Amino acid sequence: MAVYTEVTAEELYVLLERYEIGGLRAFKGIAEGVENSNFFLGTDRGQFILTLYEKRVSPKDLPFFLGLMEHLAQNGVNCPTPVHDSEGRVLQTLAERPAAIITFLPGYALRKPQPAHCHALGAMLAALHQSGLTFSLKRENALSVAGWTKLFAKIDGMADKLSPGMTANIAQQLDKLSREWPADLPSGVIHADLFPDNVFFLGDKVSGVIDFYFACNDVLAYDLAVCLNAWCFEQDHSFNVTKARALFHGYNSVRKLEREEVLALPLLARGSALRFLLTRLYDWFNTPDTAFVKRKDPMEYWRKLTFHQDVHSPGAYGL
Amino acid sequence: MAVYTEVTAEELYVLLERYEIGGLRAFKGIAEGVENSNFFLGTDRGQFILTLYEKRVSPKDLPFFLGLMEHLAQNGVNCPTPVHDSEGRVLQTLAERPAAIITFLPGYALRKPQPAHCHALGAMLAALHQSGLTFSLKRENALSVAGWTKLFAKIDGMADKLSPGMTANIAQQLDKLSREWPADLPSGVIHADLFPDNVFFLGDKVSGVIDFYFACNDVLAYDLAVCLNAWCFEQDHSFNVTKARALFHGYNSVRKLEREEVLALPLLARGSALRFLLTRLYDWFNTPDTAFVKRKDPMEYWRKLTFHQDVHSPGAYGL
Repeated sequence: MAVYTEVTAEELYVLLERYEIGGLRAFKGIAEGVENSNFFLGTDRGQFILTLYEKRVSPKDLPFFLGLMEHLAQNGVNCPTPVHDSEGRVLQTLAERPAAIITFLPGYALRKPQPAHCHALGAMLAALHQSGLTFSLKRENALSVAGWTKLFAKIDGMADKLSPGMTANIAQQLDKLSREWPADLPSGVIHADLFPDNVFFLGDKVSGVIDFYFACNDVLAYDLAVCLNAWCFEQDHSFNVTKARALFHGYNSVRKLEREEVLALPLLARGSALRFLLTRLYDWFNTPDTAFVKRKDPMEYWRKLTFHQDVHSPGAYGL
Repeated sequence: MAVYTEVTAEELYVLLERYEIGGLRAFKGIAEGVENSNFFLGTDRGQFILTLYEKRVSPKDLPFFLGLMEHLAQNGVNCPTPVHDSEGRVLQTLAERPAAIITFLPGYALRKPQPAHCHALGAMLAALHQSGLTFSLKRENALSVAGWTKLFAKIDGMADKLSPGMTANIAQQLDKLSREWPADLPSGVIHADLFPDNVFFLGDKVSGVIDFYFACNDVLAYDLAVCLNAWCFEQDHSFNVTKARALFHGYNSVRKLEREEVLALPLLARGSALRFLLTRLYDWFNTPDTAFVKRKDPMEYWRKLTFHQDVHSPGAYGL
């Protein structure tokens, strides 16, 4: 959500010479995306986004991410498409970082999505899952159960500084999730980070999905569990069952959830809450005080995890 | 250089109803401007900037700043113009802050301006000074000698933590500048913060000047001294006399500097270096470590101040 790397006009001129998108007209850093530097790029021929991939994105994953965006866009999902240079390449180097020019999507992220938006989100997510089935590249989810266990080991008891007893509770949850995590649910490409920041709307319609830099192959219903946590709780931490119901109805209107997927949702929701709790805890204790970024509150996801621990059937989610 | 305040789509819809600039199409936080929150705003009818004024800008100064931008734009200076709502107002309230929609300027800020850019900058600055002469509102420069003295008192010896002896040197400079500061040079509206971040170019031509939130009435040549410090030193801290000469030639090509203004430049350059040294020192010691903003290095301006202390005639600047 910031600009980490400065780009000079000279560097841009050289980059734009490779493309057939016209001369430079405007260039501004924008507060968008997770941990990459993003710029609004205006040329004679239109508007684009320039992304510089910072250290948390592994260069070896970029063909997967960029290829996926192109595949999904070609299959009707409104997501940014990498622009090809005159030699057909999408991946460049700028300011010593991997970089890509992608298309600019209309719309804007919502701070307070309503049930109608959750319905549209669900329908878009199902379409994304269906379109992803024909994408040929694969990427493992580095932030699934095995990844959580590694991350938890790195935090090493520090969670109790935020809330006494949190470490023991996480250990218990992690143990339970490791044993029960579903292996045989329908799988495919998932977005894995579908927070309201990453979905643009025009009115009630989804106009775009961005930030595919956690996308991977995993259980499809896990993506819904991420959305349940990110879209269906209010700022006062209360769960909004109307939004959850709208999310699931939207999803089902495009791809009908199987009975096993529905039954697994309480477990998947706990897993998703734990995933974001752990990464936020890690960042909380490992982001230097002088850093340029706002740390996200781990306690929000601690509360969500606690909420799902009391859920024993998908009925609690309005299903 | 950040987004401090979140704006919801709902708040934007309500705001845009007051205007005749079409429906919302895009909205993104941008990394631009000093200590305000700025957003890229796309509508059916074009591109705009939405600015929310954060606590460092006094609401009572906003009619001066917004009126000045409108006056200058009407008089041929490429600067953002406040957009009037259907009742003729430019100042709004959004997210509990004063806010304004201003026009979007083409162009981009340069990280490494060349002599040709310094020439264009000088010519633009002279045109800005001339156009400003017919602007009727006045605003005192809160960051001139009296302001520096107050700021220095607040820093209270802490500068020695950065470089032993700095406090005594600043005290001596401040004393000398207070006694010698020119009172009778040509005065008018100055920008007072004309760093490369605040000037947009298309090729070698200035396409826009932004961020008028330090603008005030003061000695015109002081603005040139600010530019001398901000544009004519290299990243290795060396002074580039070619750039300085280009800056002055550009200025003289539109408004000829008087002999007294030229002679005062070494003093004005010391004053300008001291002004930015003091505000950077203040921010260095008063910005919490957890803050969202990058602190600017005071030592850069300490070196510039030291440089100008050895300058005894404007010849050193290529004049």
